[in-house]
Amino acid sequence: MKFGYFDDLKKEYVITTPKTPYPWINYLGTEDFFSLVSNTSGGYCFYKDARLRRLTRYRYNSAPVDNGGRYYYINDGGDVWTPGYMPVKTELDSYECRHGLGYTKIRSQRNGIEVEQLMFVPLKYHGEVNRLKIKNTSSETKEITVFSFIEFCLWNAYDDMTNFQRNFSTGEVEIDDSVIYHKTEYRERRNHYSFYSVNTDIDGFDSDRESFLGLYNGFDSPQVVTKGKSNNSVASGWSPVASHSKVLTLKPGEETSLIFIIGYVENEEDDKWERTGVINKTKAKAMIGKFCSDIQVEDGMEELSKYWLNLLSKYSISSEDDKLNRMVNIWNPYQCMVTFNMSRSASYFESGIGRGMGFRDSNQDLLGFVHQIPGRARQRILDIAATQFEDGGAYHQYQPLTKKGNFEVGGGFNDDPLWLILGTAAYVKETGDFNILNEQVAFNCDDNIKGTLMEHLKRSFYHVINNLGPNGLPLIGRADWNDCLNLNCFSKEPDESFQTFGDPDGRVAESVLIAGMFVFIGPEYVELCKRRGLNKEAIIAQNHIDEMKKAVIEKGFDGEWFLRAYDAFGNKVGSKECEEGQIYIESQGFCVMAGIGVEEGLALKALDSVAERLDTKYGIML
Amino acid sequence: MKFGYFDDLKKEYVITTPKTPYPWINYLGTEDFFSLVSNTSGGYCFYKDARLRRLTRYRYNSAPVDNGGRYYYINDGGDVWTPGYMPVKTELDSYECRHGLGYTKIRSQRNGIEVEQLMFVPLKYHGEVNRLKIKNTSSETKEITVFSFIEFCLWNAYDDMTNFQRNFSTGEVEIDDSVIYHKTEYRERRNHYSFYSVNTDIDGFDSDRESFLGLYNGFDSPQVVTKGKSNNSVASGWSPVASHSKVLTLKPGEETSLIFIIGYVENEEDDKWERTGVINKTKAKAMIGKFCSDIQVEDGMEELSKYWLNLLSKYSISSEDDKLNRMVNIWNPYQCMVTFNMSRSASYFESGIGRGMGFRDSNQDLLGFVHQIPGRARQRILDIAATQFEDGGAYHQYQPLTKKGNFEVGGGFNDDPLWLILGTAAYVKETGDFNILNEQVAFNCDDNIKGTLMEHLKRSFYHVINNLGPNGLPLIGRADWNDCLNLNCFSKEPDESFQTFGDPDGRVAESVLIAGMFVFIGPEYVELCKRRGLNKEAIIAQNHIDEMKKAVIEKGFDGEWFLRAYDAFGNKVGSKECEEGQIYIESQGFCVMAGIGVEEGLALKALDSVAERLDTKYGIML
Repeated sequence: MKFGYFDDLKKEYVITTPKTPYPWINYLGTEDFFSLVSNTSGGYCFYKDARLRRLTRYRYNSAPVDNGGRYYYINDGGDVWTPGYMPVKTELDSYECRHGLGYTKIRSQRNGIEVEQLMFVPLKYHGEVNRLKIKNTSSETKEITVFSFIEFCLWNAYDDMTNFQRNFSTGEVEIDDSVIYHKTEYRERRNHYSFYSVNTDIDGFDSDRESFLGLYNGFDSPQVVTKGKSNNSVASGWSPVASHSKVLTLKPGEETSLIFIIGYVENEEDDKWERTGVINKTKAKAMIGKFCSDIQVEDGMEELSKYWLNLLSKYSISSEDDKLNRMVNIWNPYQCMVTFNMSRSASYFESGIGRGMGFRDSNQDLLGFVHQIPGRARQRILDIAATQFEDGGAYHQYQPLTKKGNFEVGGGFNDDPLWLILGTAAYVKETGDFNILNEQVAFNCDDNIKGTLMEHLKRSFYHVINNLGPNGLPLIGRADWNDCLNLNCFSKEPDESFQTFGDPDGRVAESVLIAGMFVFIGPEYVELCKRRGLNKEAIIAQNHIDEMKKAVIEKGFDGEWFLRAYDAFGNKVGSKECEEGQIYIESQGFCVMAGIGVEEGLALKALDSVAERLDTKYGIML
Repeated sequence: MKFGYFDDLKKEYVITTPKTPYPWINYLGTEDFFSLVSNTSGGYCFYKDARLRRLTRYRYNSAPVDNGGRYYYINDGGDVWTPGYMPVKTELDSYECRHGLGYTKIRSQRNGIEVEQLMFVPLKYHGEVNRLKIKNTSSETKEITVFSFIEFCLWNAYDDMTNFQRNFSTGEVEIDDSVIYHKTEYRERRNHYSFYSVNTDIDGFDSDRESFLGLYNGFDSPQVVTKGKSNNSVASGWSPVASHSKVLTLKPGEETSLIFIIGYVENEEDDKWERTGVINKTKAKAMIGKFCSDIQVEDGMEELSKYWLNLLSKYSISSEDDKLNRMVNIWNPYQCMVTFNMSRSASYFESGIGRGMGFRDSNQDLLGFVHQIPGRARQRILDIAATQFEDGGAYHQYQPLTKKGNFEVGGGFNDDPLWLILGTAAYVKETGDFNILNEQVAFNCDDNIKGTLMEHLKRSFYHVINNLGPNGLPLIGRADWNDCLNLNCFSKEPDESFQTFGDPDGRVAESVLIAGMFVFIGPEYVELCKRRGLNKEAIIAQNHIDEMKKAVIEKGFDGEWFLRAYDAFGNKVGSKECEEGQIYIESQGFCVMAGIGVEEGLALKALDSVAERLDTKYGIML
């Protein structure tokens, strides 16, 4: 079954049915403001941080799936539909969704009304612009009513999805002309609000969810839409939403457009209010003014397009394989930028509240985008390094808004430090900017304890050496790259975290993967030492690498392939002696990339073993 | 508008329309297993602890509201409806919901089919029994298909609503005859599973949510129900659910019944498996066997009824005011038992994951139920006392399953300790069981540090005396009874907790409420001392009370009424000097109850001030 195709010329993926096997989403935004949007117009948006500055509410694992988004309902003489199919699920005469570079465009038709719903986050803009082009393709004059709808998140997404006792009492909005402002807690201790605007006078509005939907209705059948008339509700507590309604009369062939903006505004403490109780809307009005005409929207799209073309132009290939070209020239770099921006902190499966950005992940992702945005990669490296501990270990994750390490998860994932060396080396190789190594960077997010970035790399390197186990291999700590290989975690208690419970400082369990990484990444550190004239240190470090190589060959090879680890009892993991899990791909890959056992023929043996296993167990021929 | 009425004879509240202004819920369960059930059949159930042992999934703040529960769909020749109206929302020919003591009964009709859906948690039973009586009230033979449905929660409700990246990979079920077993993580480190059974052979089943609903459908239109045929899906990961289908042919006037059970089973570590990979179902089968016939269900209901009649008989009145009788004899004691069982830890607004049971709340609730269940009140007092710190302070909340204090919230709510005295005194007065005071009880949940309960009460008493502020009034700490009066919290940072951020040990902010409580509750401690012959301690304690009385009169009275507090700068809160919040009811109530200023005429003045304020500001005449 085919659900869509690539349009290489426009650099779009075109989805031809709303009934994909799962919602297929795009990530909008380039710097501070981000939106997730599905092919059925679902999703949410946030400013910088999916946990702490969530603008719109989203329900994960909802039934139906993908429940909540920016919805535009058309009431055409009682016939109600939504261009994205969801949530109303009225069948459409035609449907197409184009996920492009930083924008998504849904175009659909029903009963002689064609709607094109364009969604994008303009460059240097703290908001999502939605432009609806509505055309009467029939031969008669049509009067329809358009209802917009978003639901506000009360800023902290975690609190918003758990603490109802409090949240149902705090919601506040302000309505001014055609703009609905969401200002919950702005009075108390927030310096930010959001808004939902439309570039026309309106026939009605709603800002209270229950008034809009009706208590026992879902997004599929809001009572206001069914009735065809807004309630003009003003939310006070409960669930603030924003909906405009606009009656449109369109002659045959006539087209009109409506531009909606979901925006985020911060004000200085002494500039928060226009007058008592009335928020200062200056910045919001400026934002609205930037995109209140089609030509402005088109200019904004043009700018965005140039931005992406520039990024993609940094590296491209031209082969005879269209699919290879497409991936290397368009979608892989696009994906890399998404990981730069979000580092997997928010998706349809990652609720955006639990992890922030990963130390390992972000360093790793850097390898993919460093050539596109070296300047921003530089800052990212410094941000990450600041969450490293003095002993060279690191917070496993950090929060993008505050740039502080996540205390709840803590550290002890012993491969983390090495990734900082790899990320930094990739940056230096791309830019030649050795100066970054002289930057003073905090340890443990504490500006009182600083060291050069080079010092950070040194601590990363020696965090491995200072944490060797009985076989001279690196201790695994809580886990390594395989986040779920928790060899020091013995909780039998299901109410404890399976991953972070227990002593991360186990002095027995060792990781052959980290050993392989050390031999693979260590030379980058040696090379940086040499370039800085630290020849003595380079020699010492190289000796450690050589020792590690030996340790892997002596203690980390199982006769036919590389072991995966030793557990906390000193037993082998990923060995022919094991009943299950005899061979792990991870250690084969990293050890071979590191060149371990190449001369001795062990590397080849390991790869042959993998190939054989794949063949005999899974029928996969390499 | 009227939505229902009290049926005093049956001790039921009868709801006559499913379209109540909000779902109206009942709490089922008496000891370890609890269910929340709404008048539209929504809700969830758990074993002991709403956070750690949640059996069924529930989506708070859903749109539509009350989304998820135990649902029974009737497909009557393509016409699909649910007896509780939700989630299908097909209009019913008749509808009635009776919330009784520990059970809920929904009876409705459509097109000649009458369904009575009875839900209850039997005594000493770890499950919810649902009995469906289905009658053909038409004059023709009818063939209908009944589909049951529940959705499993993956045990830890917090994790279940936030950690999708993991949860979507772990779900496991087992299907045996007509029973669907939910065994996620049973293999790894849980000793418990749940099941959903029906007392008949079935025509089909489903255990995978997407297969049952269809990806883009909600609970209102499961594709299986619409189609009229189960998919026989076996869940592996994603969202395990349980649904049976049964085709029924009913002659005119014929009635049949189906009995469904949602049950919870724990097995010993060495008794978990029947054979490799197959769970030991012995206990489940025994549970199912207990309620597999109508007579067993009726016996179970009879037992439950006796249980409640016995509880209600402990104290009753007979006045000329029906409403007073009804409240005192039925609904207030019923409500008190609910607070005993759950202490507000789970509701439709309290997500059951954030707080567990409150130290203050549970002591306070005790006053309402101690005469009904003195034996269990005794255990509760000892459980609560064990979460007290050595210095007399206390964890503000604890988790009912583990009985450990909640570290995340911590202590510092300085009224907490006094409630332990009040609760214990109420228990002793009711039972004469002075022996409880000799029980050895842990401090800080640590069995290595114990003291008698009397010692705990002493530490409670002196926690106030050891924490007096500049005016000789009790320091407020994080807050007092008014959880939101956080006088030592100065965070300007909206991403920090508004309540637990900052130094709880502020040595300036004082609470007149706690002072009033001390004078009100302190004498209970004095009396207990006297009864135990601790006459010297009684005199010392009485002196402290007298001193406090003086301090309140001198520093806690504002000329016309009692102050509420002093803030961290020593400024008055709840004073005529204040711009807003000049008078607080809380300190007037407690100080007057304590008899402070009665002789001096201050108490009367305070009450007059409240009365006057209510009159002039709100037009309320006392």
